[in-house]
Order: sequence, then structure tokens, then C-alpha cells
Amino acid sequence: MIENWFSERYSDNLQLSFRIKDQLLSVKTDFQRIDLFETYDFGKLLTIDGTVQLTEYDEYIYHEMITMLPFFSFRIKPDSALVIGGGDGGTASSLLKLGFKKVTNVEIDSQVVDVSKEYFPEISSAFSSDRCTLIIDDGIEYVKKTKEKYDIIIVDSTDPEGPAEGLFSKSFYSSIHKALKKGGVMVTQSGSPFYQPKALKLATSGIRSVFSEVLTYCAFIPTYPSGFWSFTIGSDLPISRKEKIKRGKYFNEEILRGAFLLPEFVRKIMS
Amino acid sequence: MIENWFSERYSDNLQLSFRIKDQLLSVKTDFQRIDLFETYDFGKLLTIDGTVQLTEYDEYIYHEMITMLPFFSFRIKPDSALVIGGGDGGTASSLLKLGFKKVTNVEIDSQVVDVSKEYFPEISSAFSSDRCTLIIDDGIEYVKKTKEKYDIIIVDSTDPEGPAEGLFSKSFYSSIHKALKKGGVMVTQSGSPFYQPKALKLATSGIRSVFSEVLTYCAFIPTYPSGFWSFTIGSDLPISRKEKIKRGKYFNEEILRGAFLLPEFVRKIMS
Repeated sequence: MIENWFSERYSDNLQLSFRIKDQLLSVKTDFQRIDLFETYDFGKLLTIDGTVQLTEYDEYIYHEMITMLPFFSFRIKPDSALVIGGGDGGTASSLLKLGFKKVTNVEIDSQVVDVSKEYFPEISSAFSSDRCTLIIDDGIEYVKKTKEKYDIIIVDSTDPEGPAEGLFSKSFYSSIHKALKKGGVMVTQSGSPFYQPKALKLATSGIRSVFSEVLTYCAFIPTYPSGFWSFTIGSDLPISRKEKIKRGKYFNEEILRGAFLLPEFVRKIMS
Repeated sequence: MIENWFSERYSDNLQLSFRIKDQLLSVKTDFQRIDLFETYDFGKLLTIDGTVQLTEYDEYIYHEMITMLPFFSFRIKPDSALVIGGGDGGTASSLLKLGFKKVTNVEIDSQVVDVSKEYFPEISSAFSSDRCTLIIDDGIEYVKKTKEKYDIIIVDSTDPEGPAEGLFSKSFYSSIHKALKKGGVMVTQSGSPFYQPKALKLATSGIRSVFSEVLTYCAFIPTYPSGFWSFTIGSDLPISRKEKIKRGKYFNEEILRGAFLLPEFVRKIMS
């Protein structure tokens, strides 16, 4: 019997492989290569340039943690949010579920959006809501020029190689700061501390140069390299948790506090 | 060029693969199959029945978390410890570093010990200490018949299939209870909540039937299935953290508190 596997190489010497039923799509866009697989264990799997972006089965962890955790950690209102990247729509959809009145999603690659609309109708449901505005543009340019002010800005990017490199730069974080309301909050995914310490270092040092409060938190994501992922928050106000919080399938009151408590090797990367 | 890879199948449809320089050993013992590889990224890799037991590069996380976390969470003295399983010696060596006066290590398979002594001299260093007594015996039988009383008993087993099945049984936890000093603490590894919820369920329900305090904590271990691992403590006293704690490469004061704060899906498995 022929077995078909998709493998993500974490390095030249380590890989995680998913057995697949079928490859549904493979397209080279102006920015990147998008592949879509039907796996046996994780439902549909979306990859960009060979790295796992999401699977149907565990995407909730990433999307809950990049939205619910910062939202419930600060007293910001669910008024206006900006998402940079996140063309699958999962982050925007999660923000709408939290009650945000207006979500602007700026994605550079319209084909990521198209694929998600076709194959991940639930995850991309935000794009059919009148509370969500989709803009196909370079996020860096958009944030630089926007006159809007947001309660929260979420950078839901790929790794800091290729098109997302500028999303880990000090000048980008400075533009974000200007596009936030007073006391607003930014959050970015900052990679696997184990395999991509550079991403975490870039994010924390860059955000520190602009914001007075910089907080890294981690979550377990089984289909991302090493199964352990970091996110970094920037704000000018300290943490002030909301009193009433919602639970997700991963997120809860314990995670609201516990995700900020980090292993020694992660602290060392950030120091 | 021929590439050699060792793959651990997490299911029929998912596997993690290490590129290897060389296979150093492959032996079928009376209990299990032991393989040893020289990998490119993780140093030496020890597998039992095809599952990763330890790599030189990340074993510190498992061994710190199964020893330092329970030790610093309770006021137990570093007098006498019992390790069931753990034939590589990593748990016993970590207990000696914590200052334990007497560590008894009961391992069923002498060949695991032999391999570790030859290939992992640092990890197995406990076995050359006069503070450590190695007993080759069935841990279940040993605990049932011992007249000794221990401050801490650590169950450092393989998964609850095959030879380790009995190490997840209520009668075993009951024997452990009798072999503990008053106020003593037991801890067992309890599997990947993501891929082995059964192990966690067996451990928590079994330990609850014997101990009044049952606490599960988790750690990120990149070379174990899903990268996320659980451990479960049983005691008759509530947590009472030591004031002075040592740091490891993973363990620190944040982890001492944060490891007990669990995702919603893990709470659901335990409930």
C-alpha cells in the first residue's frame, strides 16, 4: 500500500509527519506557497511554505490564546481590533465571538483568504460578518498610514523569515504603538522558544523598545514545532485582569494566570 | 545520499522523526526492546519498544519536573526516596543532587541500567553513588513487600501498556501509600494528555482512591508525543511549598506555581 505523508522539517534533522488522505490544493502565490491536505488525525491541514499554519483539530488552541488571553488580561473594551496577517480568519472570528464591534483584518495574500473561505468555513466565518472588514494590503504599510485607533492589535504572522520579517521589527512595533488607543494592547505570536529563540528575542527586545510593559506567555500547540509556542504582549499599562472571563476549549482561568509563568530556559532567551 | 531516520509513531497517522548518525545498540531483553541512536540534533537517544525514553539534549526537563517540582511543593525532608522504574538513573541522580541521603531505585530490567551506565554516564551517575541502592526487581512486588518507609516515591515508568500496566493500578497506589512516611508524597508520570488521556485518567482516578490530595501538573517536553506531558502527585497533606528553592534549566519559581495551572481540555480529562 502506498502511504502519503506530509512532513514539516523543524531542522535538517527532525520532522513531524502527518499521514494524509489527499492533497486538496497546492498553489504558488505572489508571496508564498500554500498547500492544503486532508489528514487522517487532524482534519484539514493548511501549510504555508511547508510549515503548518493550522489544522482543524487543534487550531482552537492558537486562536484562543492569541485573542482570549490578552483580552481577559487587560480592561480594554471590545470595540475595535486590528489583525495583521491571520488570513485564515481564525483570529478575527475569535475576536467577534468575544463581542468586538469592529474587527479590521489586513492580510497581504488574498489567496490565503480564498482558501480559508472555501475549505475552513467556520474558522473564516468572520469574513462574512458585517462587523469585520477585510483589507488586502501589506500590514506594515497599513499600520504606518492608518488614522484609526484600536483597542487591540494582533500580529498573527508566519515566522520571521520571508514575507513576515518586517513584522518583527522595531519600526513596525512603533507604528503599532501609534495606532493603539491609550492603554491599548498589542500581541504577536513569537515562535517556538525551543526551535526559534530568535523570533522570541526579536519580539521581546523590539516590543521593549516601544512599550513599558512586555509580557511573554506560552501555550502547548501539538502541531507546531516542539509543541510549545510563545506569544508576546506590549502595553503601556500593567496587567489588569477582567473579572468575568469566558472559557474556551484550552483557555480558562488557570491558563489566564499560568500561561505567563515560564520555564527557566525561556526566561534566559528573553533576558 | 542515504539518510537514516528513527521515527516514533504517535498514532498510525502521525510520527516524529530524528535523523540519526548511527544506531549504537538494539537489544531484545526479557521485558522489552531497547534501541540506542546517535542523533544529529538531540545527542544520544534511548528508545524502549519504539518510544522515546530520553535524549541527551532535553532529558533535563523530564527529570527536573519529576523530582524538583514535587520536592519543592511539599515540606518533605530529603531523607529517603524510592524510584520505581527510571532505569536510566536520571531520576535517582536528580534526587541525589537535591540532597537525598538515601535513594532506592527498583528497576525491572537490568539491561536498561547497563545501557545507561555505558552510554549515559552523567545521567546514570547515581548508580555509582553509595547513597543510591539499585534493586533489580518488579516494582509492584517490591512496594507490596517492603518494610521501609519513604519520604517520596517516584513512579518513573513507561506507558500503561506492556510491563508498566500495573504501575497505573489502584492496588499499586495503595501499596505506595503504605510505603510512605506520614505526610509523604508520591508522583507518577501520567502521559500525554493529548494522545494518552487514558494514562492521565487512570493515574488521577487511581490516586484519588487512596490519597486525599491529588494534583496534576504538566511540562513541555519536545521529544515526547505532542510535546506536552503530565505528572500526577498523591499526598495526604495539601501543597506547602518550600521557601528556598533551587533552579534547574527548566524548573524555577514560576514553574513551581505555573505547572499546576492546566488547560481546560486537561481538566476535562481529569473530571
